[in-house]
Parts: sequence; C-alpha cells; structure tokens
Amino acid sequence: MDYERRRTLTVLGGGLAAGLMGPALLRCTPSPTSDASTASSEPGSHVPLPYVELDPVHVGELAYRNFYRGDCMYGVFASVVEALAEKVGEPFASYPTSVTRYGAGGVMGWGTLCGAANGAAMAIYLVSKNPAQAVSEVFGFYEKEALPNFVPAGAKFQLVSSVSGSTLCHVSISKWCDASGFKSYSAERAGRCAQLVASVAKHTVEVLNAQADGTFSAVHKLSGAAIACRGCHDSGGVLENSRGMMECGGCHFTQPGEHP
Amino acid sequence: MDYERRRTLTVLGGGLAAGLMGPALLRCTPSPTSDASTASSEPGSHVPLPYVELDPVHVGELAYRNFYRGDCMYGVFASVVEALAEKVGEPFASYPTSVTRYGAGGVMGWGTLCGAANGAAMAIYLVSKNPAQAVSEVFGFYEKEALPNFVPAGAKFQLVSSVSGSTLCHVSISKWCDASGFKSYSAERAGRCAQLVASVAKHTVEVLNAQADGTFSAVHKLSGAAIACRGCHDSGGVLENSRGMMECGGCHFTQPGEHP
Repeated sequence: MDYERRRTLTVLGGGLAAGLMGPALLRCTPSPTSDASTASSEPGSHVPLPYVELDPVHVGELAYRNFYRGDCMYGVFASVVEALAEKVGEPFASYPTSVTRYGAGGVMGWGTLCGAANGAAMAIYLVSKNPAQAVSEVFGFYEKEALPNFVPAGAKFQLVSSVSGSTLCHVSISKWCDASGFKSYSAERAGRCAQLVASVAKHTVEVLNAQADGTFSAVHKLSGAAIACRGCHDSGGVLENSRGMMECGGCHFTQPGEHP
Repeated sequence: MDYERRRTLTVLGGGLAAGLMGPALLRCTPSPTSDASTASSEPGSHVPLPYVELDPVHVGELAYRNFYRGDCMYGVFASVVEALAEKVGEPFASYPTSVTRYGAGGVMGWGTLCGAANGAAMAIYLVSKNPAQAVSEVFGFYEKEALPNFVPAGAKFQLVSSVSGSTLCHVSISKWCDASGFKSYSAERAGRCAQLVASVAKHTVEVLNAQADGTFSAVHKLSGAAIACRGCHDSGGVLENSRGMMECGGCHFTQPGEHP
C-alpha cells in the first residue's frame, strides 16, 4: 500500500499526507520484506512515529477506562495514542484507533491472541525503533507474571491474579477462572480483563520509556524448557518444523516420558 | 480515544479530521462497551467506513505481492485498503497501513495469531456492518480449508496445501511443514505463507462482497465437537470457565476416554 499511497499523495500534492502522518510518510520508498524480524524503521514504512516518554500509571488508568468503552485491544492501543496526543498533539490526535476494537475477546470473541497483547504490539510497532525487542518483553511479561498486577484508581473489584503461561485470550481467561472461582461471563471476569488491560498498558509504556532513555533490559525471557524444545523444532534444529516464541507448555500438555 | 480525539478536533476546527476520516468520524459520540460482540456501528466509532464491492482475485494478487513487502498481516489488510483506494480514493488512499506489519509471523515472530487472520479481521472491522459474522466465516475458513487454495499469477512455487485446524501461526506452519516436508525457515514455507495470505485476502473480499449484496451465508461453522465442548465450558454451561470460538482440537490433544 505504501508505494501506491505515496504515489497518490504525490499526485494530490501531499497536503493530506502531511496532515495525516507528517513528513515521516513522505520520506519513504518501498522495499521488499519477507521476514518476521522486519524492523519498523525499514524503507517503505511510516513507522515508527516519534515517541516521547509517558507516565505508565496515567496510561494504565486511561486503559482501564478505555476497556469499558472499546474492549481490550482498543484499551491498550488507544490509550497509548491518547497519551501521546495529550503530550504532542499530531499525528497522534487524529490517528484512527477505533478500528482496534476488532481485537476484543481474542478477535471478535474468538479467544485467539489476547486483545491487550495485540494492542500492545500494535502500539509498540507504531512508535518503537526496536519493536521486536519490546514486543518480546511485553509478551513474556504477559505469559509469566501474575496478572492483573496493577489496580487502577476506582477499580470496580479487588481480584486475585493468575499466571497465564500464554498470550491467548482463551487460556488466559480459563486460568484466571480456575484461580478465582469466577465464571468466564461474570462481571468480575470483565473487571479482571479491564485491570489486565491496565497492567499491560502500564508495562508497555515502561518498556517504551526504557527503550527511549537507553535503559532497556529484557526481564521476561524465554524459559529453558521452551529453549530446549526449540533446539530441535526451530531454526537450524534437526526437525525445523516450527516457528514462534510462545512458551510451549501453554498448549502442549505432553507429560515427561511421553515425548519421542 | 474517540471522545478526546473528537474534542481535540473540534478545537482544531475539524479540518484534519475531515481530511483523514471524512464526515464519518465527526458523527460520533462515545458509548461504554464491554463485550466482544460489540458491533462496529456503535456510537463512538469511526468504523465502518463505506465498502464497495471488490474483485477477490485482484485483491488476492495484491496480497501476494504485499506479503513480500510487509509480511502476512500487512499483506491482507493493506491490500483490501489499497483496492478500496483504487476504487474510491479517500479515506482509504491515506489510511495508515504500515503499522500492520507488527502482525508478521504471529506478531513479530511469536507464532500467535496468524497475521493473515489478524489482518483480515482488522480489514473486516474497518468496513463491515456485521464484522463478527464475517470474521467468524473467515476464521472458520482458515481453520477448516486446505490452504493455500489460490495460486496467484507469477507465484514462485507450486505447493501442497494443508488443513491447519487453528488460526495460530505456529500450528498452521507446523501442520504445513508436516504435509509438505519443507522446513519452517525455507523459501518454500515463505512462499506458502504468501499464497495463504493471497487465499485469505481473496476469501475476505468474497465474504465482504456477499455481505454487501445481501447474499452472505456462513459456510465454515463451528464443528459439532467444539459445540459439545462449549456445552459445559462456555456461556451458561455447568463450568462456564472458557470463552472463544476456536476449534478445541487445535491445541487440546486429550484422547477420548481421558477427558473427565
């Protein structure tokens, strides 16, 4: 799309583009890519937009409120954009965010990737110069921390936390239902997701801030168990029949001794 | 974000907003939401943008090319937007698409939700008046069809297809590696993902067209096995400890007789 958009905008004189995305868009030329490690700073991309450090607690509070307005993906993505708009105005003030409501409930209720994680990744890619690093830290945090771990001001419930072991909505919710005793369609479960969204938004900003001020250090890394699995199944392994960074135990329930 | 954006744009006189999203944005007022079934036509949303019927094969061809420029999520999302821009211009011609590169390889290589599915869902939410219906059809198609099922003009490889049984990148790739004998970091696997992106983009447009002309009918529905699981684990079930629409067998490998 970038090339055609650029061409169209050149024909139009670039006025709208300048208003929408600023000069960043117009600097670009397209470039072929085909690998998931693609850096956002590559030619052909309007990202990353310039980031300024934000208050993690403030963004967490925004995310809690925005969950109840547009669900989980919107809760994280729109809150980061909204906080940037508060500080710097454009291009964030007019950046379209409502479309991210599609991520609700692991994408329209399907229970796939948690919308908080999906929204965090999109927000990171929008503004980070090293999005792979930041996404891995936030996704690792999501898998390994007992969440929610941040209670916003005015939260409706005091709730227990649980470790998901997975970034998937379905797994995350079921683990919390087991830990809490609440049902998956209860108001308490919705309140837990709202606080989880706030927790993920807060940590996303902490990671972006650390990248921005040069103090970033990965905390939530791939486990030894997953590294062992990847030794055979990932790049260069004898099987090389898999791709991914998820913790394997989130879905593979094979007992020790049953694995070939 | 919507309310603050609307307020900001009012202060600014709305000129940029009109250029960015057209009058659709300015009609909106915010409204609380907290359920994954949220319709995109609710107050507070700039979506859906107006859809016009597209040529599915053309969009599939665009998606194949765009995969090699921006990976899987971008391949689907940007191609639908690009085709709409070709037909109607704004607001699609200046709609930001490069950010969707974050979805590559199940989000920055993590192997979670397949980027083709993620991009299809976002594209659907952008333009469909009933996004839940369309996403369910496209996700069901992704799980149940042998993919890729569309070979674009100029495709680099002739490849076998495989049924994923899951919308997750990791599962989808591993199933195809098993079926094809190719490794997960091979050029053939990348070619398979490019053709899968083309196949998903083509079907997404078929579904959007059917919704637009009133002929939509769901083809790829939840299996009887998954419906049986949901009888206990989903809304109203005796356990009610789960949410989601995924086929359970994509991750749950329990043999008959082992389930409680």
